[in-house]
Amino acid sequence: MSTEKLSSSSSARGTAEPGSVGIVAPQSHTFSEPLELACGRTLRDYTLVYETYGELNADKSNAVLICHALSGHHHAAGRHRPEDKRPGWWDHYIGPGKPIDTNKFFVVSLNNLGGCHGSTGPASVNPETGKPWGPDFPPLRARDWVHSQARLADLLGIDQWAAVVGGSLGGMQAMRWSLEYPERLRHCVVIASAMKLSAQNIAFNETARQAITSDPDFCGGRYLEQGKLPRRGLAVARMIGHITYLSDDGLGKKFGRELRSGTFERGVEEQVEFQVQSYLRYQGDSFSTSFDPNTYILMTRALDYFDLAREYGDDPVAAFTHARCKFLLVSFTSDWRFAPDRSREIVDALMHANLPVSYAEIESAMGHDAFLLPNERYQRVFGAYMNGVAAETAGEVK
Amino acid sequence: MSTEKLSSSSSARGTAEPGSVGIVAPQSHTFSEPLELACGRTLRDYTLVYETYGELNADKSNAVLICHALSGHHHAAGRHRPEDKRPGWWDHYIGPGKPIDTNKFFVVSLNNLGGCHGSTGPASVNPETGKPWGPDFPPLRARDWVHSQARLADLLGIDQWAAVVGGSLGGMQAMRWSLEYPERLRHCVVIASAMKLSAQNIAFNETARQAITSDPDFCGGRYLEQGKLPRRGLAVARMIGHITYLSDDGLGKKFGRELRSGTFERGVEEQVEFQVQSYLRYQGDSFSTSFDPNTYILMTRALDYFDLAREYGDDPVAAFTHARCKFLLVSFTSDWRFAPDRSREIVDALMHANLPVSYAEIESAMGHDAFLLPNERYQRVFGAYMNGVAAETAGEVK
Repeated sequence: MSTEKLSSSSSARGTAEPGSVGIVAPQSHTFSEPLELACGRTLRDYTLVYETYGELNADKSNAVLICHALSGHHHAAGRHRPEDKRPGWWDHYIGPGKPIDTNKFFVVSLNNLGGCHGSTGPASVNPETGKPWGPDFPPLRARDWVHSQARLADLLGIDQWAAVVGGSLGGMQAMRWSLEYPERLRHCVVIASAMKLSAQNIAFNETARQAITSDPDFCGGRYLEQGKLPRRGLAVARMIGHITYLSDDGLGKKFGRELRSGTFERGVEEQVEFQVQSYLRYQGDSFSTSFDPNTYILMTRALDYFDLAREYGDDPVAAFTHARCKFLLVSFTSDWRFAPDRSREIVDALMHANLPVSYAEIESAMGHDAFLLPNERYQRVFGAYMNGVAAETAGEVK
Repeated sequence: MSTEKLSSSSSARGTAEPGSVGIVAPQSHTFSEPLELACGRTLRDYTLVYETYGELNADKSNAVLICHALSGHHHAAGRHRPEDKRPGWWDHYIGPGKPIDTNKFFVVSLNNLGGCHGSTGPASVNPETGKPWGPDFPPLRARDWVHSQARLADLLGIDQWAAVVGGSLGGMQAMRWSLEYPERLRHCVVIASAMKLSAQNIAFNETARQAITSDPDFCGGRYLEQGKLPRRGLAVARMIGHITYLSDDGLGKKFGRELRSGTFERGVEEQVEFQVQSYLRYQGDSFSTSFDPNTYILMTRALDYFDLAREYGDDPVAAFTHARCKFLLVSFTSDWRFAPDRSREIVDALMHANLPVSYAEIESAMGHDAFLLPNERYQRVFGAYMNGVAAETAGEVK
């Protein structure tokens, strides 16, 4: 059921919007070689949906893999239709002249296995039962994504990525790439990430999962079979997530204690009182109809279980001695979900493992979300590093 | 329906447990003079449940009022029955020889109006309908609690408190006391509190309320009439709260990433994986059957709306020029719900208003919960201040 066109990029040329990759179309491929998973189970076949931006060069040395975070997907840049209100989720950073410059790089962005945007996941039909997988979909770990992404690289004829790049959970995949396939990437870009979650991170994820699973419409995860959707639970889960993506200062600057309507006068108690409440409810509601609850559970579990150094005797230095690539680490001052300290731990381990590493701590009030948002210094640092990657690549091409 | 015995303390004497007030019994009084509320509505009559510890001295100058926080109640010290597993919620700080020394002070601790531990609240019967108030119970503000507490003081014959003391939402009531009844308290002790909530604080409260109100068993707040209880929603709300009461470090020290059972081996994915998940679920579950959901909503709204200086032109200094008492402010280093900065803002305003203020920032890894927990320096600072209050009181008696 593959619909991919390997020979052509999915980017349309000649678009009017400067700095944009323009109109893009997702491609997909169904892999029929079984994939053995970290949990011990095997997926007999699976589909991955992906987009590509820019052109793969002759020696296939300019490919960049984008790994997405918790609620991300393959649509990272450009628009599917001219009338789309918003471009892909990382359009600020991917495009002609942007840090991941599509004039220089061939960019590959996929929807991870277990996702809900076209790749095989809990909402897909289980071929053995003819019903949606639901809660029976195998639990995944970051390494499973890395292995499936390597299959996608094989498909595209990419032996070695110029860089594997990711923010948050995407950064965890990028780090795992450096250990699982050390010869298959030259650079690893890890943004706003961590080697493992703290107890507080896990606690927030657990509370979000509880909100979903305790919604009666969750039906033990078989809501699709029952024609239901645990919207309310997923909305609350998203609200919890959203607060942790933003900083206290960021929320304060964005909303303060402004009232949405009404006043503090006597007798007035509106249903929605503060601006921030209205914002959160909107975020929760819109997410609750656009994302699969079982995927949310699967992704947060993968986050909770990620522990880069566990199988290396809990020694990050020992882990990174398996890596061969160069690293860029970026963190944001107001990010309390994956604070700068978590990035510094990675930098320390890399230095002790004698690996080349650049690190930038970016001043931002936007919390964890900063990795997605425009920020001059972030763009400059990220762009300069990727320019260096491109220069190396061009050197190799010569 | 009053059952109070004004002439005798509720503390039993001669208990074996050192430092404890011993066996205590709640008292209650039904006030029949209507109480005009900040929302413009009036409560025709209402009951307050309270406990007292220690003895009121002859000139009634040694009384201390304890104001409780979000999920607190009147039972602050001692035990109701010898077999009670745990004493009152602030037993570490109230008792003979403790910071609020019941050998010196007559301590009054009540369940606030709108509560669910015996005082009139949403779970009480609305005399006009014969059904539980539910969502029709009037919204309350901190000043409503202060006014009802003043009625309790009148009942007990206390013209002036030696001190009004509270942590968190309790500290907000203590500050409001200093502005509403400046002549009726000599000291105001404000622990781990703030002059108003930040947008992030409000966002967490809003998410908690959404978890409750989106539970189908909430029934628009009329769950008691329908014989239902939104347990799942309230459990999630409590889990959200709990994470914000603890620090990241505190959670890390308490649980780390320890697994409750099972291993990281292949094929194992337990229902409850990390210790911290099990802890949170337990906290959520036990709270969900012991607390009234409408009270939780009412209390968090009162928190959200509290804004000490709003009616004083948003100028805290202008607000505090109405106060006449002395202040002790205490904060805890790892408290990110009401961080030390929030206490320092209060200290600054008090100093600019030329009011006597002592301030201690206590080193603790326990987050907001630290105000309830044993801590040597906190006990010493708090005890020394209250000793000073007692010495003044004794001086006045002579």
